[in-house]
Amino acid sequence: MDKFRFLTAGESHGRCLTAIIEGMPAGVAIDPEFINAELARRQQGYGRGSRMKIETDIVEIASGVRFGKTLGSPITLVIKNNDFENWEKIMSIDPKDFTDEKSFTAYRPGHADYAGSVKYGHVDLRNVLERSSARKTAIETAVGAVAKLFLKEFGIEGKSNILQIGNLTENFQAEIDRAKEAGDTLGGKFEVIYENLPAGLGSYVHWDRALDGKLARALMSIPAVKAVEIGENPLGTDGSRYHDEMYSENGKIIRKTNHAGGIEGGMTNGEPLVIRAVMKPIPTMKTPLKTVDSADLTETSAHFERSDVCAAEACAVVAEARIACVLADEILLKFGGDNPEEIKLWQKTKI
Amino acid sequence: MDKFRFLTAGESHGRCLTAIIEGMPAGVAIDPEFINAELARRQQGYGRGSRMKIETDIVEIASGVRFGKTLGSPITLVIKNNDFENWEKIMSIDPKDFTDEKSFTAYRPGHADYAGSVKYGHVDLRNVLERSSARKTAIETAVGAVAKLFLKEFGIEGKSNILQIGNLTENFQAEIDRAKEAGDTLGGKFEVIYENLPAGLGSYVHWDRALDGKLARALMSIPAVKAVEIGENPLGTDGSRYHDEMYSENGKIIRKTNHAGGIEGGMTNGEPLVIRAVMKPIPTMKTPLKTVDSADLTETSAHFERSDVCAAEACAVVAEARIACVLADEILLKFGGDNPEEIKLWQKTKI
Amino acid sequence: MDKFRFLTAGESHGRCLTAIIEGMPAGVAIDPEFINAELARRQQGYGRGSRMKIETDIVEIASGVRFGKTLGSPITLVIKNNDFENWEKIMSIDPKDFTDEKSFTAYRPGHADYAGSVKYGHVDLRNVLERSSARKTAIETAVGAVAKLFLKEFGIEGKSNILQIGNLTENFQAEIDRAKEAGDTLGGKFEVIYENLPAGLGSYVHWDRALDGKLARALMSIPAVKAVEIGENPLGTDGSRYHDEMYSENGKIIRKTNHAGGIEGGMTNGEPLVIRAVMKPIPTMKTPLKTVDSADLTETSAHFERSDVCAAEACAVVAEARIACVLADEILLKFGGDNPEEIKLWQKTKI
Amino acid sequence: MDKFRFLTAGESHGRCLTAIIEGMPAGVAIDPEFINAELARRQQGYGRGSRMKIETDIVEIASGVRFGKTLGSPITLVIKNNDFENWEKIMSIDPKDFTDEKSFTAYRPGHADYAGSVKYGHVDLRNVLERSSARKTAIETAVGAVAKLFLKEFGIEGKSNILQIGNLTENFQAEIDRAKEAGDTLGGKFEVIYENLPAGLGSYVHWDRALDGKLARALMSIPAVKAVEIGENPLGTDGSRYHDEMYSENGKIIRKTNHAGGIEGGMTNGEPLVIRAVMKPIPTMKTPLKTVDSADLTETSAHFERSDVCAAEACAVVAEARIACVLADEILLKFGGDNPEEIKLWQKTKI
Repeated sequence: MDKFRFLTAGESHGRCLTAIIEGMPAGVAIDPEFINAELARRQQGYGRGSRMKIETDIVEIASGVRFGKTLGSPITLVIKNNDFENWEKIMSIDPKDFTDEKSFTAYRPGHADYAGSVKYGHVDLRNVLERSSARKTAIETAVGAVAKLFLKEFGIEGKSNILQIGNLTENFQAEIDRAKEAGDTLGGKFEVIYENLPAGLGSYVHWDRALDGKLARALMSIPAVKAVEIGENPLGTDGSRYHDEMYSENGKIIRKTNHAGGIEGGMTNGEPLVIRAVMKPIPTMKTPLKTVDSADLTETSAHFERSDVCAAEACAVVAEARIACVLADEILLKFGGDNPEEIKLWQKTKI
Repeated sequence: MDKFRFLTAGESHGRCLTAIIEGMPAGVAIDPEFINAELARRQQGYGRGSRMKIETDIVEIASGVRFGKTLGSPITLVIKNNDFENWEKIMSIDPKDFTDEKSFTAYRPGHADYAGSVKYGHVDLRNVLERSSARKTAIETAVGAVAKLFLKEFGIEGKSNILQIGNLTENFQAEIDRAKEAGDTLGGKFEVIYENLPAGLGSYVHWDRALDGKLARALMSIPAVKAVEIGENPLGTDGSRYHDEMYSENGKIIRKTNHAGGIEGGMTNGEPLVIRAVMKPIPTMKTPLKTVDSADLTETSAHFERSDVCAAEACAVVAEARIACVLADEILLKFGGDNPEEIKLWQKTKI
Repeated sequence: MDKFRFLTAGESHGRCLTAIIEGMPAGVAIDPEFINAELARRQQGYGRGSRMKIETDIVEIASGVRFGKTLGSPITLVIKNNDFENWEKIMSIDPKDFTDEKSFTAYRPGHADYAGSVKYGHVDLRNVLERSSARKTAIETAVGAVAKLFLKEFGIEGKSNILQIGNLTENFQAEIDRAKEAGDTLGGKFEVIYENLPAGLGSYVHWDRALDGKLARALMSIPAVKAVEIGENPLGTDGSRYHDEMYSENGKIIRKTNHAGGIEGGMTNGEPLVIRAVMKPIPTMKTPLKTVDSADLTETSAHFERSDVCAAEACAVVAEARIACVLADEILLKFGGDNPEEIKLWQKTKI
Repeated sequence: MDKFRFLTAGESHGRCLTAIIEGMPAGVAIDPEFINAELARRQQGYGRGSRMKIETDIVEIASGVRFGKTLGSPITLVIKNNDFENWEKIMSIDPKDFTDEKSFTAYRPGHADYAGSVKYGHVDLRNVLERSSARKTAIETAVGAVAKLFLKEFGIEGKSNILQIGNLTENFQAEIDRAKEAGDTLGGKFEVIYENLPAGLGSYVHWDRALDGKLARALMSIPAVKAVEIGENPLGTDGSRYHDEMYSENGKIIRKTNHAGGIEGGMTNGEPLVIRAVMKPIPTMKTPLKTVDSADLTETSAHFERSDVCAAEACAVVAEARIACVLADEILLKFGGDNPEEIKLWQKTKI
């Protein structure tokens, strides 16, 4: 991100999750209730485990907003971890509090444990788990909610749909019940759709300005996402049936199909943006996976902490948020502007 | 890219394609013949059209290399467009040479024409075509070849395989012959594999350091790529069968599967990196697509310039190159170093 | 900054100042008392006003550190604004709390008020003041203290000296007393020195990799700094007397002068880094400046909030912090590494 | 630079200097004669040596421009080194051409030789000299000329003035003659002025968005620049006399002074931008400096290649170019836009 910049921080059982967003124009309406509603959407979905009951995520805006509007200065978002009181000693920053309570050394396959401990030299794999946890997607959802509020000023809105859970494209609950009984987990496929985007976001002139590439990065870097598609997967379709032909109707150019998912030449083409992702099954399972203990290289079973059977609905909400950030950045790059009057100018003349 | 930086330039029928690479350590062996061999690989493949016969791409290294080794200073790569003599007037930079020869105004569906002309205000769609053309992937392949030469110093090598063309996973030539006769075009699916990567490239600590996201961006921003997968697509596979369990064998950790494609927690995990992409069918077809002329909004047929029936093999070579650039950048970010002695140090101690 | 990344946030009278640092290796010792000592240094100095008595800045580390060591995950720093309880309504994020108490419309010359209100469309200039205030340098000092702790692992340490206050190069207190009585303010000149840096940080190969440029940016972007010099200002010195000749002594290369301030060719050359800056006099004065009221364009006097007579000592501490961030980034770029063992490797072989 | 991106390449005696500029809107008029005139200005000035007679720099635009206007696609600039025919073998990329003709091992004080050879492991110091040479500022001047052509569309123009050469603020030629006779070299001080800038470029909201910091970086990273000032150096001036008071005149805000050099709060304030720099004396001298030979650590004299006595006038032209790049980037960041109609829109409404 070049203009909509942000950093996030926070361990899964630490004091809080935080984010700082830099680059928002002044004068954008920020409603904390909208952000909280997005956080609640992320916590819902059939197949979620017990943690979702512990945390009811509420955002605190600690800077960058005054009397309901952005100031143009950086925005701080904080989400407290309600469970922290039980972890205060275990997650202490003070060396005098050192404890190996809750430490573990058996790599959990499918998680960051092995590569993360090689990279950062961690012996206690909790030091990896705490940041690699999907818990961090809560604050990313809050950042994305701020991006969505910015996009709303231009009439741009997004939504998502679950397309498949496990093997089923409908009756998802039965599939989840089946997996739960088996002590197993399920992945899924979902789509994110954004409408009312102006044509010409992104560019064909240099590889790193292609919008499809930026969107793919935003989704593939969500923990658990392993596949991303833009529009209809063209595999097995001949050119004559895949491409979206153009027609003229009452002096306007129209299309009857949107196989391209709203992207041609690495740019928005004015049609709805449709992007799909496949999430892998959660790697923490009641029926544990075989693994190795790093302490003595003996074979063992992977550590089990409370977990979900399927988190595809949450993942789709996170994906909406990620896409919102990319689109906010592109709008800012293309149209510039620092204040509400400049925003109105774009609304009148450009979009 | 943060350390392996590059910019590319050049129109499809302009004087030349150019690239500047900044950030390479000194002392890396650069063999122009290897780069030329990669360029030749990109030009091969069953189903290619006549342009491939016009151009035999040869790289010229105009800076940054002396007596066969990188200097540490920026590397300039140039590929001449052999066809330029026929286009010198049409592509002239001089306003006095203005001509509308070869100009066109009917948007080609599936190309950058429509969105590109909205964005840049071009009336003559050739101004879009010339840069949005896949011709620019030639110089990207040359840049990737330099990255590959850097990776070779660490014993890291990549390759690609075609997995599907049109509807067939084998007997590709028959499928291409069928489409050619029908005046149609075909997409395809391929995989890129890099072996011998150290564990711990990328990171889980912040979304924009996840290697899977960077890899997905690199492939999805290739013109024509519409879907990217890392490892096996997990759709429909339960967690107990998807995740790659870990075993201990003679004091070493091993895996018997690599469904994750070598990426866990956004990092390399020491297994081969496997990344797949789906290319859409080429949108320039003998049987032309319906479209609209921007000049008068009448319905018409899309402009046809020479084209390929299927370019999946070329696309796979470009994908290898793109991945090489991402991996070179990650190696430089993780291990630092500016000269051959420092490279040897990493080789001994890290990889 | 490419590897040592950070964002800061917070209004002068808001709830708190925050920063997130991303890119620190794991295993670096973090002592909050060192950070607090740096914050205290920034609050000292002869000539400071009353605000320094209100705030005794204490850092809270809200993420990224466990049992005294960095985790490799992003580090959150928070400094509470002790005065916030008196400003809670005035700085509220809630539109229902709207008040024009403490608002003002007369531009303060020398401050961001005029350009900032043009840019962000603010009518109440407090919306500019709150972020443009030098208060934000407190959290930058905390970020720099973390960078200093990283540099300490390599034996690199920095300090600063006041060279001139107002017109005097000694007896600074008398000069400050004089200005205070006159209701006036003073600027000053200081130097920052870092020793024990390895040769070869920065580079000559591309303009934006030159270390002197990065250092100058870091200092010139401190509010109030208007001039920056590296080493001795060469103005009026002939080449034969300016350049630092090299000698051989017991098999080692030595220099007898350091006019270059430790930088040749945009790189550290192994001599102490010496960088100087001139701070302008604080523009908030008891004897107010003439200005214009934005509300009706009448001439008036600039708004006066409590202020300092001279803040050069504080500015020098901020400058040390900024330089620490640049140097930490350069060390990470040159040597890479993610964990303590890799840090030890560099210590042995590189520095 | 975030939107006006560029990379440069080329060795001093290599085939050519090249640059690629990415991020220019379409439709900007590009006149090669203007670029060549800027290159000629850089080659002029009393006190220049013989190389300036060898090279008459002419730019070739190899991409990104058609019929006199930018296409929006990357722009390639090439300047041939006319002397290359004499250096073809010495600078060959082919290992078979290896020669130690023109190699040297005695570090030249004041140059990149020592630090550069430590960094990149070069034994032959020519490998450092070739890129660290000021020759590379020719292509930077060409890049800046393109930025100037963009700024011209908004009526923004820059110029520079020599303020001091050696010890004299006037009668520069006598001072240069004196130094020449003594076999010595001279530095100097110059200023760059840009007028007609809109208020609000840059920002106070985050340290790395401050325009003064970006400008200082652009100048301090020019080889030989050791000091940078924005506006009047405030050292020794009390606040009451330094700050630029504001007045109301016929409904407009005016100032009677511009000590701040057009920058307040890290932003343009609508007054002329004035930025000054001090250049050190050229370190290559007829009366050579004492140094050490890296081959055997014996003391010796520094290598002398043809050189100038004083290059301050050339340096000022390079400085204009650097500032143009920063300002073009800031205009693009603030106002966005990709085509001529959007440029006209800004012209009408913003500036």
